[in-house]
Amino acid sequence: MELLKNTLASIKPADEDAKKKAKERLDNLTKPIGSLGVLEEIVIKMAGITGNIHNKIDKRNIIVMCADNGVVEEGVSACPQYFTKILTENLIKGYTGVSVLSKLTGTDVTTVDIGVNGDITLKGVLNKKINYGTKNITKGPAMTRDEAIRAIEAGIEVADSSCKKGYDILGTGEMGIGNTTTSGAVLSIFSGLNPDATCGKGAGLTDEQFEHKKEAVEKAIEINKPDKNDPIDVISKVGGFDIAGMCGCFLSAAKNRKPIVIDGLISSAAALCAVRLNSLAKEYIFPSHLSKEPGAIYMMKEIGLKPMLDLEMRLGEGSGCPLAFQVIEAALYVMDHMATFEESTLDKDVLIDIR
Amino acid sequence: MELLKNTLASIKPADEDAKKKAKERLDNLTKPIGSLGVLEEIVIKMAGITGNIHNKIDKRNIIVMCADNGVVEEGVSACPQYFTKILTENLIKGYTGVSVLSKLTGTDVTTVDIGVNGDITLKGVLNKKINYGTKNITKGPAMTRDEAIRAIEAGIEVADSSCKKGYDILGTGEMGIGNTTTSGAVLSIFSGLNPDATCGKGAGLTDEQFEHKKEAVEKAIEINKPDKNDPIDVISKVGGFDIAGMCGCFLSAAKNRKPIVIDGLISSAAALCAVRLNSLAKEYIFPSHLSKEPGAIYMMKEIGLKPMLDLEMRLGEGSGCPLAFQVIEAALYVMDHMATFEESTLDKDVLIDIR
Repeated sequence: MELLKNTLASIKPADEDAKKKAKERLDNLTKPIGSLGVLEEIVIKMAGITGNIHNKIDKRNIIVMCADNGVVEEGVSACPQYFTKILTENLIKGYTGVSVLSKLTGTDVTTVDIGVNGDITLKGVLNKKINYGTKNITKGPAMTRDEAIRAIEAGIEVADSSCKKGYDILGTGEMGIGNTTTSGAVLSIFSGLNPDATCGKGAGLTDEQFEHKKEAVEKAIEINKPDKNDPIDVISKVGGFDIAGMCGCFLSAAKNRKPIVIDGLISSAAALCAVRLNSLAKEYIFPSHLSKEPGAIYMMKEIGLKPMLDLEMRLGEGSGCPLAFQVIEAALYVMDHMATFEESTLDKDVLIDIR
Repeated sequence: MELLKNTLASIKPADEDAKKKAKERLDNLTKPIGSLGVLEEIVIKMAGITGNIHNKIDKRNIIVMCADNGVVEEGVSACPQYFTKILTENLIKGYTGVSVLSKLTGTDVTTVDIGVNGDITLKGVLNKKINYGTKNITKGPAMTRDEAIRAIEAGIEVADSSCKKGYDILGTGEMGIGNTTTSGAVLSIFSGLNPDATCGKGAGLTDEQFEHKKEAVEKAIEINKPDKNDPIDVISKVGGFDIAGMCGCFLSAAKNRKPIVIDGLISSAAALCAVRLNSLAKEYIFPSHLSKEPGAIYMMKEIGLKPMLDLEMRLGEGSGCPLAFQVIEAALYVMDHMATFEESTLDKDVLIDIR
């Protein structure tokens, strides 16, 4: 509990002075003011995070939290539970979507077993297992409050360690059959939206299975009655170890003043929990793409961020993060390499005209 | 006229067999079918273009068409006309947004003077000048029909030459004060939407200037009465040399079976003209970002494409293309490097389950 408490207390607001200075330089580049849109917002936000107006994201790491969800026994997923373990192993072997996109973009991947239902013996997994999967949320809480706190703290530890290793930016991802159900439940609680809006067909449900998934979310909320003003209560009752772990990553990044990127629906749920625990965390979080999962757009609204990519992806694993890293890198590169009016040959009159 | 006629006649449909084979391989990769969304669509479209299921875009070129617009004398732009020449020179010198983003992404830039009002003597410009800017469209046609055809053919020549040089992908961009006005007019004609929907504030108009811009578009359409079924008539009456030149680039790319990328509002107008001249051209065109210009969304709808990036950019110059190249590269990389079920360790039962 001490690590979570200290982390929450250590998060400081963004550096407004650095943001102002970054905006001043952007407005001096040879382009109409604001014409690079979100690229300019990225540069300014990054200055607020690090306190410097020039930034690089050469060292990149995506933390993938892998865990099982007891609610799978309700038939809410097209995949059987043991897929979590197999796909986690594939992650470690570098076979999956996020592995490949990370290789292209010079990104490391840290695969964390935070609650897989089975023992992963492959070298390369980080063992932070809290338990062998959560319990069925339609019948009671997913985990104890103590487990939720320990899972968040495990996420803080992993991200703290990444920051210590000198990573310039972090990404978040997950692997866990059933986790669009838990994410839908988390979103329904915080937003007040019913499961029709917050749930989707995940990896490929039939219409009938989809109806049952929404009923499961309703039942989980009814039985557990999570307190929306207590994010730890929400996570422990209807969340998962993956959501808790990523929530810890977001908090750690904010504490360490490092940028951290959301992937899809599930990491959005974790980001939402982090922001509800400390609203300042938002200043350190970048969105990536708008997931094809129907709840994703409400998740983004609830957090108050707008995705930069619209690729109808719904793979998870953190696969949107490497693509967002490329956009962020481009934004920072423009800041470093585009000429200011003073540096270019535009004479003073022109300078005044264009502004 | 011969070059345009032959180009239009040489455009063939996409290779449906290659598209089918690409989809088969995608469906065999270790992920839920379709879960990589637009990345998968990119891979399939690219196969249709080249006829191969594995593709690379290592050699990249953005063709930037620079030209002046007579309508600027109506006060439709926040910038004076002579900016076109200065900013074209800055492009050649590598000072602008597209120059910097191209450098980051290993992209060449071909700067074409297709109608700048002034002589550009800097080494590095490609001189394809049709005239020293167009005429004021609120008083009569922008150019003669012959000029429109020559400008389109100039674009075809430039892109043909790029294809001969071995570029794997082309991007389109422009520089020309007043060209959001001509683009708005082109969109209004093809879509039937009035200027309230098709025009925006460009590089920074006041409310009053903005009203005047919309009036100018209305007047241009009223006076010139372009025939929406004759895209060359539309270009010659309310378009610009930049739009005509880029239109030629889109047609050339389709003829040469090379992918070509749209940037913002103005290159969308050119793409729309190309697609209206030969609807097969669309099979070779990739969108990039959704420009902040309000007409952009209607432009995309009219062409029938959906942007992959949402960055609220409104710089032009082709600046969205390098960012789209990165997404396209990522899509192709996934296709080449992600394991199929057969290549991974997933056993047959699992293979069947996940599909």
